[in-house]
Formats: sequence, structure tokens, C-alpha cells
Amino acid sequence: MANQILNVAVIGCGRIGRIHAENLALRIPCARLVATADVTINAAKEVAAQLHVARATGEYRELLADPAIDAVAICSSTDTHSRIIQEAAAAGKHIFCEKPIDYDLTRIRAALAAVEKAKVKLQIGFNRRFDPSFARVRELVAAGAVGQPHVIRITSRDPGPPPLEYIKVSGGIFLDMTIHDFDMVRFLSGSEAEDVYAIGDALVDPAIRDAGDVDTAVVTMRLKNGALATIDNSRKAVYGYDQRVEVFGSKGSVAAGNRTPDAHVLSDAAGVHEARPLHFFLERYAEAYVIEIRAFVEAVLKDQPPPASGLDGLQPVIMGLAATRSLREGRPVKLAEVA
Amino acid sequence: MANQILNVAVIGCGRIGRIHAENLALRIPCARLVATADVTINAAKEVAAQLHVARATGEYRELLADPAIDAVAICSSTDTHSRIIQEAAAAGKHIFCEKPIDYDLTRIRAALAAVEKAKVKLQIGFNRRFDPSFARVRELVAAGAVGQPHVIRITSRDPGPPPLEYIKVSGGIFLDMTIHDFDMVRFLSGSEAEDVYAIGDALVDPAIRDAGDVDTAVVTMRLKNGALATIDNSRKAVYGYDQRVEVFGSKGSVAAGNRTPDAHVLSDAAGVHEARPLHFFLERYAEAYVIEIRAFVEAVLKDQPPPASGLDGLQPVIMGLAATRSLREGRPVKLAEVA
Amino acid sequence: MANQILNVAVIGCGRIGRIHAENLALRIPCARLVATADVTINAAKEVAAQLHVARATGEYRELLADPAIDAVAICSSTDTHSRIIQEAAAAGKHIFCEKPIDYDLTRIRAALAAVEKAKVKLQIGFNRRFDPSFARVRELVAAGAVGQPHVIRITSRDPGPPPLEYIKVSGGIFLDMTIHDFDMVRFLSGSEAEDVYAIGDALVDPAIRDAGDVDTAVVTMRLKNGALATIDNSRKAVYGYDQRVEVFGSKGSVAAGNRTPDAHVLSDAAGVHEARPLHFFLERYAEAYVIEIRAFVEAVLKDQPPPASGLDGLQPVIMGLAATRSLREGRPVKLAEVA
Amino acid sequence: MANQILNVAVIGCGRIGRIHAENLALRIPCARLVATADVTINAAKEVAAQLHVARATGEYRELLADPAIDAVAICSSTDTHSRIIQEAAAAGKHIFCEKPIDYDLTRIRAALAAVEKAKVKLQIGFNRRFDPSFARVRELVAAGAVGQPHVIRITSRDPGPPPLEYIKVSGGIFLDMTIHDFDMVRFLSGSEAEDVYAIGDALVDPAIRDAGDVDTAVVTMRLKNGALATIDNSRKAVYGYDQRVEVFGSKGSVAAGNRTPDAHVLSDAAGVHEARPLHFFLERYAEAYVIEIRAFVEAVLKDQPPPASGLDGLQPVIMGLAATRSLREGRPVKLAEVA
Repeated sequence: MANQILNVAVIGCGRIGRIHAENLALRIPCARLVATADVTINAAKEVAAQLHVARATGEYRELLADPAIDAVAICSSTDTHSRIIQEAAAAGKHIFCEKPIDYDLTRIRAALAAVEKAKVKLQIGFNRRFDPSFARVRELVAAGAVGQPHVIRITSRDPGPPPLEYIKVSGGIFLDMTIHDFDMVRFLSGSEAEDVYAIGDALVDPAIRDAGDVDTAVVTMRLKNGALATIDNSRKAVYGYDQRVEVFGSKGSVAAGNRTPDAHVLSDAAGVHEARPLHFFLERYAEAYVIEIRAFVEAVLKDQPPPASGLDGLQPVIMGLAATRSLREGRPVKLAEVA
Repeated sequence: MANQILNVAVIGCGRIGRIHAENLALRIPCARLVATADVTINAAKEVAAQLHVARATGEYRELLADPAIDAVAICSSTDTHSRIIQEAAAAGKHIFCEKPIDYDLTRIRAALAAVEKAKVKLQIGFNRRFDPSFARVRELVAAGAVGQPHVIRITSRDPGPPPLEYIKVSGGIFLDMTIHDFDMVRFLSGSEAEDVYAIGDALVDPAIRDAGDVDTAVVTMRLKNGALATIDNSRKAVYGYDQRVEVFGSKGSVAAGNRTPDAHVLSDAAGVHEARPLHFFLERYAEAYVIEIRAFVEAVLKDQPPPASGLDGLQPVIMGLAATRSLREGRPVKLAEVA
Repeated sequence: MANQILNVAVIGCGRIGRIHAENLALRIPCARLVATADVTINAAKEVAAQLHVARATGEYRELLADPAIDAVAICSSTDTHSRIIQEAAAAGKHIFCEKPIDYDLTRIRAALAAVEKAKVKLQIGFNRRFDPSFARVRELVAAGAVGQPHVIRITSRDPGPPPLEYIKVSGGIFLDMTIHDFDMVRFLSGSEAEDVYAIGDALVDPAIRDAGDVDTAVVTMRLKNGALATIDNSRKAVYGYDQRVEVFGSKGSVAAGNRTPDAHVLSDAAGVHEARPLHFFLERYAEAYVIEIRAFVEAVLKDQPPPASGLDGLQPVIMGLAATRSLREGRPVKLAEVA
Repeated sequence: MANQILNVAVIGCGRIGRIHAENLALRIPCARLVATADVTINAAKEVAAQLHVARATGEYRELLADPAIDAVAICSSTDTHSRIIQEAAAAGKHIFCEKPIDYDLTRIRAALAAVEKAKVKLQIGFNRRFDPSFARVRELVAAGAVGQPHVIRITSRDPGPPPLEYIKVSGGIFLDMTIHDFDMVRFLSGSEAEDVYAIGDALVDPAIRDAGDVDTAVVTMRLKNGALATIDNSRKAVYGYDQRVEVFGSKGSVAAGNRTPDAHVLSDAAGVHEARPLHFFLERYAEAYVIEIRAFVEAVLKDQPPPASGLDGLQPVIMGLAATRSLREGRPVKLAEVA
């Protein structure tokens, strides 16, 4: 890092791995994508070829062994995250890891301990924190523009449910989908949750109920700073990806709404019509993904704490576990009960 | 009513009584305001004089005894509502009564039974149902524009808390303020609630906590039709009266936001600035009050069911009692527990 | 006026006369509607009966002769305005007169001279000045919020053309319709126009061309304070009454858009949909009409200059005449050429 | 092009040349950036190095002589455009050329003739046509969503004036800045202009007047299809780049407003506040530049007409010359007078 260029390898070349690879290769001047890895070696090779990257491998441990590599972006399947974090930390690599670290608190804590011990940087991929709108909301809240936060309100709806096979292994809606909103509650309020209450049902597709999950949910929380929070989720908003937040406080309110692919307004005899929100996360958070990985690279190069830490990776999982239990038991659940 | 003009007397000439009196006198061609009553006779006389009404009295029972009077609008203090309803029903008068009928379910049921027995019309003053924006939302939901409702979301914030003396006798935030939002949930969803969970705190003013109440709350509900609902309340939004609703369903979402006193947009070096929402209910619901009382007059003249019935008066009180118990006991409460 | 109540008679009980009569009778506490007049005496009587007014006449001169009447609102046909102004002034009555005073500058000047000589108040009915949105724009401009005005931009479109018979006697689009926008340019900029250039065509209905008029026009102006102005007009916007203004200046821009009957937003698979603007001037300017006539009453009672003076009545007619000549001759026309 | 990859060289590596180079290198899979040229060879080398491009030269003619190069993007200074177009056409290269081709109609026509003769593709860099909002407006107009166009309305304001030295050689506001809006009028309406009338002044900076130019202007046009158009320009909008269009027609209106860097809305005691528009063209049209150059590449590869042709390059210059003469002579000028 003498020359202030960070050499990064991407581990896992699926959809999200490709995004980070492309951003590292093309849009972050102070980073260099030096290698790709994927259990399917052809996926690694394809990404490398497209991005003029010399090295591609089916065995990520080769990359961990290479002293020329400063950092890794872990984009492999969730069940491998905690293990690769530990191995990468042991190898002295700085780590960007996609969310969630794991669904199991013991494995998460083992990973965080390894990072702690190795004194490497760890950033978790909570991309929404880097969305310019949500970041601006946080900035205004932190600057005191709305005073003391009283109510956090989040609406988060996907355009359509994932395949049923995915849902079955997803850990449930609260660990798979709401986890982003749990992170938002912490990020926007600057506070931890005290307890969680969740209601939900399979209103979109009864097969989701048969799979033991829900597709529509409302979660409320009491936060340690006194504020109240409410999240509503749906797996299917026919009009597109609906991602809105609001922080209401003693001096006002700051909200952020959806973004649209274009700004046209059509007025005709039937009414006034505008574009639907950007379709899904790839479109909505395209810019956030660039800002996120740049923030990681800069945190490493400047030896500063990354903006979404290991603790930030742990807490939303605890909240998700509490919400899962709340839904099952029909009562509010304290985080301390599941942590 | 041979000539299709309804002769109405207003009982109670405080702030809300004056609004109904003025609307009846000036804006409803098929109604005639024929008398006013108030325990403070001068209040009754003042309103009568302003509106060219011949009769004003300190004793409302005189009006109930007058066969020339077809209907009464009960705008006196809440503790008198159920009694006057019973007396007016016994006298064969049609009744418009401000919300709530009472905080006591036995008294409410006695009033409804008297109305039932006398076969007179009863409409409860849930003014928000007549707000053109919320009415349009309901109309679209009823027409199937959003398909099956999945989530009802309501934000309802006052510009400032009422006097502490008022709060002490108000029945608590859920019976005083959220009661309107409970009505909205029923109105917009077309469904009853199954259970209620409430969290809340005195974040605006600790004196409200000392008075045994909260000023900030989040309430969630499961509805009998399967939908989920969430309401967030605050006694103090420094930017004005914040009244927003959304119904999200299988085919889309319909929402209604705030209205502003004017439509200016100022763009300068600091940003883009617009007007704050209309200050409070008198401004925001001015039009709704006219439409509401006209609907009552027309329901009587056409012998149709009024648009906010006795049952509509009862149910939100049950929801408020359930929310009150939920807050106290820290658990979801079924409506059947308190009904 | 010792008791600070202004006794007003309305002359002319057509559509606009009824609006002023109703507002004077019901919504302006410091005014009393004491009489109505109309060449069709039944029209006068009908309005009087509805509003509990004792006196109605077919002969307005009777009212001018009555010393108990302080002021008149002239709402008769345009060709009678200048004559009645002169008679009312001679009788010492304060005068509210609907726009335009006349299409003939000599007759306008004679009317203004009579007002001047009699030292009575004269207010011209430029209702848009009292629209809360446009008034707020002016207020911000006058307060320097946008600095020195550089460009005034007005869009003004009716929902549909008036009957062809009306168009034939209307004086043409610039004197009938654009006259309001000319007033807005003066009101918003605080400046007079130097010259006018107009282009236009009958794009809505060829019969309007046959009647010697246009239905679509764009007018540009250079103002004496250096600002530039542009107005676009259409007789037919299928989505409703489109009334927007913008003042752009050295420190920013302030604009005001349309108002809608309700604030709903429907999001579905086809897009995001909102309500159309309020249909036409009766709906859009309902509030402005109340504020306008109240301003007249208060100006008289407080002996202050009315907010839309005789000069304000004269200048837009000059601008309309210049635009008419510009369209005919295909060149910019200085106001001095027609004044 | 057998393999359907277009080999492109960029000539001119200033601000706009770098944008096209980067987009060609990174974001257009079916294009390959194979060389850069700039009279300052180091500029060419720097861009080449950043983008992994092997070849950089100070002499663009070398590239024209290379048969491996299929197309060139001409981003050099305006005075070189027409000459390089002719040389590139003679060399059989397809051509993307930044606007304007030239300020001199004879030179433009010579360039177009050379292109015609060589049967190569020529696309002019009218980037706004590719802005998703404006493209959507055009799409809806072309689909008949607003019926027959009646009025085209464009507001186009820069955040600040360019250096005075630039203004002196810019050809004047109408050829430098309004030229984009002239293109928009043609693009959105699908029609040519008949005549132009322009008013303007130096309201932002008197030094601009001294340089023989204006900084604030309003231009109106009559179009051959009967529609009317109005453009208002300013060199300085303190709130940022203001780029709005509207097409109003017999069946409605479609408009496109500004885009913002984020979607936050802050409500506080002072009002409701949002972000200012994106600062300037690099931010606002970032996406448009990608779409634009991709459209050129695809037009060549598929042997289709490029979406902004040589004629599209010629006509706005004629409109700019007519506007310039109109401002000088104070009268509407027919395009035929200057063409």
C-alpha cells in the first residue's frame, strides 16, 4: 500500500460478486482488482477476462496465501462467510464481506474474534447505508436537524418473492430481507434495539407459508435511546422496489423516498402519471455499491474504521432472531433473550 | 321533511359545535339550522345571532321536546354524549354525535340500544372519513385498485400537545387521539382488528408521563381479513399536522399525504423549499366537516344508513381500550379481551 | 362605517356576482350584503332570498341613490362597467369592479378619472392575485428571496374553450384570457412591460380561427426593470385548469403549481398516478375570491389603497391591445404604440 | 466488424473526450477503445493509460490511416470538427462528432456532403436526446400520448456562466447554449421551426454585454407543424442546473423535470426542504452520455441510421443564427433568411 493502491481479490463471482469486481476494476481509482475466485472456476475466469484481470482461480485459499493481495471481498454463499473471514483474517487480509456474516451467533462471534485478533479491517456489505438518499437522512439526523429521534419508520418491499427453493434456506424473511431494515434502524437512529415485536403472514403466496415462512410482516421495536421503530415488509410490490425511510424527532422529520428511472410526468384526461420506482436493488443501489466498496478501500488505505463494522454485522442478526421468535411466540422479545 | 329540508338543532356550542352550526346554516341547502343549545346560554345565543337563527337555549331538553326539530347534532362534552343520545332517540330525533360516544362500553351500548329501539339515524363524527384524500383512498381500495389489502400504514401527528389538564381527563392517547386512526384502519381496510400491540413513551413532555399518559406511540394490529396495520402517533410535529395513510395490497398501493396552504416551491442556493402542511385539524379538515354533516343530512332525508354508524363509534373505543391495556401489560391484546 | 361594518350591494347576479354576494353575506364578518341588483330582476331576487338579503332590484340606480349603501360590487356585463363605475363614483360609492373595466382605453380612462375626482376606492377583480400560492410567490419576490427578477414564466390553460358566441364578443384571447396573465406579470415582477410579441393559432378548434381569434398563444415581453417574460396559453387542456407561474432571479426561483382536489397517489403495475388539477377557476380560485373581496372591504374600512387599483385595471388592457396588434402584424409592439 | 465489435478511436482528450473514452472502454461491451489522439500528446497518453488502451498519438491522421479502426469520436475543438469529419469520411471511418459541427453553414454543408459521399455513419453529440427523462417524453409524444403538439416549453439554465474568454469565442449564447434547446424543440416536436424571435439581456454579468453577448434570453418559435415553442435560458441559476421540458398537446401534456442527487425531504419548523437539482451537465447527463455513445456503436454495427444525424447537426445552427439576428434586429426572423 506504499503507493496507495489497494490490491483486492473477489471471492465468489455470482451476481453480487460481479458487481463488486466491476466496481473495483473500473470505478475505484485507488483499488486494483488483481484476482477472482469461484468454486466454479469458469465463473471466476469469465469475470477476470471481462475486466482485464490476470488471475482467476477455483481455490480462494491460493489468493489468501499471496502476499501481493491486500484485501478480499467475500461474495460467496452465506454458509462459507464465517469460515473464509477467519481464514482471511489469519492470512492478514483486510476483509469486505457480504451480509449476513452467518445466521448462527456463535459462528459470527468466532469470525469477529478472528478479525479482532488479526487486527485487520472488516466491512459488512450493508449497501443501503451508502445510498445517497439514506446517507443524507443519516447525515441530517446526526447533525441534529430533526432533534432527538422519536419514531423511525421504514417501508421495504421487494418487487417479487425469490424462488421457493431460496426461501426454504434463507433463514426466514427477518434474517434474509428485514435484516437490511434492522441495519437501517440502527444506522439512522444511532441506537440499539431493546426489544422486537413481529406480526406476519403469507399473503402473497401460500406456498411460502408451507415453507414455514411469511411474506408480509410488520415489526416494531423499542430502542435504547427511547425512540420507537416500525418496519413494514412485503415480498411483492407490483409497482417495483419500494424503499422508504423516515426519522421523526423533536425538531422535525427527514424522509427519503423512492427513485425513478426517469422524471417524466404525463397529464391526460385520466390523471397525472409518473414512472414507477426503479425495479429492484441492482437498479436502485447501483450507485450505493460503488460508494460502499470505495469506502472500504479508503478505510483500509487510510487506516480508519470501516463504515459498517463487524458489530454492525452481528446486531441485525440478533434482531432477526428476536423477530423470528416474536412471530412464533406471539409476544415481544427482548434482544437479550436471543443474544 | 315533506319539503325535504331537515330542521337541525346543535347541542353544544364550543369549537366543534360552531363548525357544524355554521356548515348547517350556510353550506347545506337541504338543512336548516333552527336552534342552538349550550349549558352556557350566551354561547348558544352568540352562535344563533351570527347565523340568523331565531332560537337559542341553555336547556337542550326543550329542543328535544319540539316536534318541529328533526335532528340534533350533539357537540357537548364527551361525558354527556351517551345520555343525550338516549334522550334524543327517545324523542324520535335523528342524531349526529361527535366522537367518541363514551369511553365506557356499557354506556356506549346503552346508547346504541336506544337508537336501535327508536329506529332513528345515528352518525358518529369521524370527520377524516370525509376528507377528500382519504375518501379517495377508500374509494380506490373498495374498487379493487390495490387488490387484497396487505398492509395499512398510518402516520398521525399533532402540531402540539393539548393542555395537561385536558390530557389528564382525555382517556389517554389511544382513546383521545389514536381513536381517529383506529377508525381509519377500519374504514380503509373494510375489516375489524383481531388484536392490538402498542408501544409508547412520553418523549415530547415528561409531564405527560407524570399524568399517566404517553405522547409518542406505535400501534400494530392484525386484522380479521389477514391484513396487518401500523400506526405511528406523536403529540408534537413541529412542522404541523401530519396526516398520512397508505393501503398496500396485492395489486399496488394507494396513499394520501398532507395538504399545504399554498403550492409554492422556492429554489435557492440552500435547496428547494415548500410550504409546511396545514397547521391542524380545523384547517386540514375544514372541507371534510362540510361533507360530513351534509352526508348526515342526506342520509336522514333519503332514509339511508349514515356513513359512520353506531358500530363505527363502538369499535374504535374497543381498539383504544385494547391498546391501552397492551401498553400497560407489554403484550398484544385481543379485542375479545376488552369488548 | 362608524360601526366598522361595510354595507355593500352587488350589481349583476350572474355566476361571478353570486360568488361575491355569497362571500360578502357569509364569509366577511365586517361586511353586510344589503342589496342585489340585476337587469333580470328575478336573478337579483333569487340571490337575495338565498342569502337572507332584504332588498333586490332590477334597477341598480336605486341602490346608488341610497345613502345607506357604502359600496358596490359591479359584476354586470363588461360593456356596462365603465358607465356604472362613473355613476357609482358620482354617487360616492366605493367600487369593486370585475375585470376588465372595458376594452376601450378612452372609456377606461373616463372611469378612472371619475373615481379619482370622487375620491372613492376602486378595486379591480384580478382574483388570481389573492390565490394563496401566487400571493406567496409575490410575497417571496417582494422580500427579495429570488433577488432581482430575470425571467417570469406563466402557463395558463383553460380546461375547454367558451362557447363560440362568447368568443366572438370577447375582445379576443389576449383581452379575455391572457389579461389575467398580463396582470400576473405585473403583479409578480413589480414592473411594467416595455413591449410585447405574440404568436398564436387556432389549434384547438378551426371555428375559433373563423371567428377571427386564436386558441393557443405564446406571448413574450421585455419589462422596464430588465426582466423578460413568457406566457403560454391554451383554451383547452384536457387534464383541467393549468395555472402555473415562476419568477426566476439572481438568487433563485420561486414557482407555484396547480392544486388538486385530493392528495392521493396510486402506485400500480402501470405506474404512479395522481389526481388532475382542480377543474376550472370556480374550484381553483374559490378561496381567492373570498380573500379578494375581504381585501376590498378592509381597504375601504381602513381607508387604505385597494390591492388591485384602477391602474392595475388599465395596464393589462394596454398589454392585451399590444399583443393583439403584435399577432396581427407579426412584430413586437411597444406599449407606447397602443396606449 | 465481423465479430461485431466496433474499434473506435477518440480524437480530442479534453473533458468531453475523456467521458466518451471511458464509456467506450468500460461500459459498451460491443465497442473497443483502440486509440486516443490529442494535439497535446500527453493528454492522449494519460487517457490511454488509465483505460488500458495500447495506442496514443498526437497526430490523429495516423489513426484515420489505420484500417483496423472502424470509427472515430471527434471531441476536439469546434473549429476542427468540419475538417476532421471530411478527412475521416474520406478515410471511410464512421463518425461520432461533438456538437456543434461548426458555426458556419458552408463548412457544415461541406462536412455533410463528404459524409454523404463516403456513405459512412455520422452522429452528432446531442446528449440530451439520450437523457432517460427527455427520451421518455419524446417516446410518449411519438406514441400520441399527448395528441397533436400545440406548445413546446423548455427551461434551460446553467449553474454559472463560463469564463469570459470562452464566451468571447463561443459564437454567442444561441449557438453555444440554446443550440441544445433548439435540438430539443426539434426532437420533442418532430418538426422544424418556421421562424424565431429572441429577446435577451446581460442580467447576470455586465461584462457579458461588453463581450457582445447576453446571459438571459427568451426565444419563441412557430413550428412547421403549427405548434408554438418557447425557451427560456439563463447562464446562472444559483440552485443548480435547471433542465426542464414540456410538450403540451390536444390530448394532454408530458413534462420532465430536474433530477436530484438524493431523494431526502426534510420537514422542520421552517418548511419542507429537498435537495437541489444535480449540479451541471456532467452529473445530470452522466447516464445520457453512456446511452448516446452506445447508440452510435449499435447504429454502426447494425447499419442503421444514427439517432442524431448530420441534418440534426445543421438545423440547430440555423436556428441559432436566426435567433442571433432576431435579437440584433428586434424582429422575428424566418429560418429561410439565414439558411
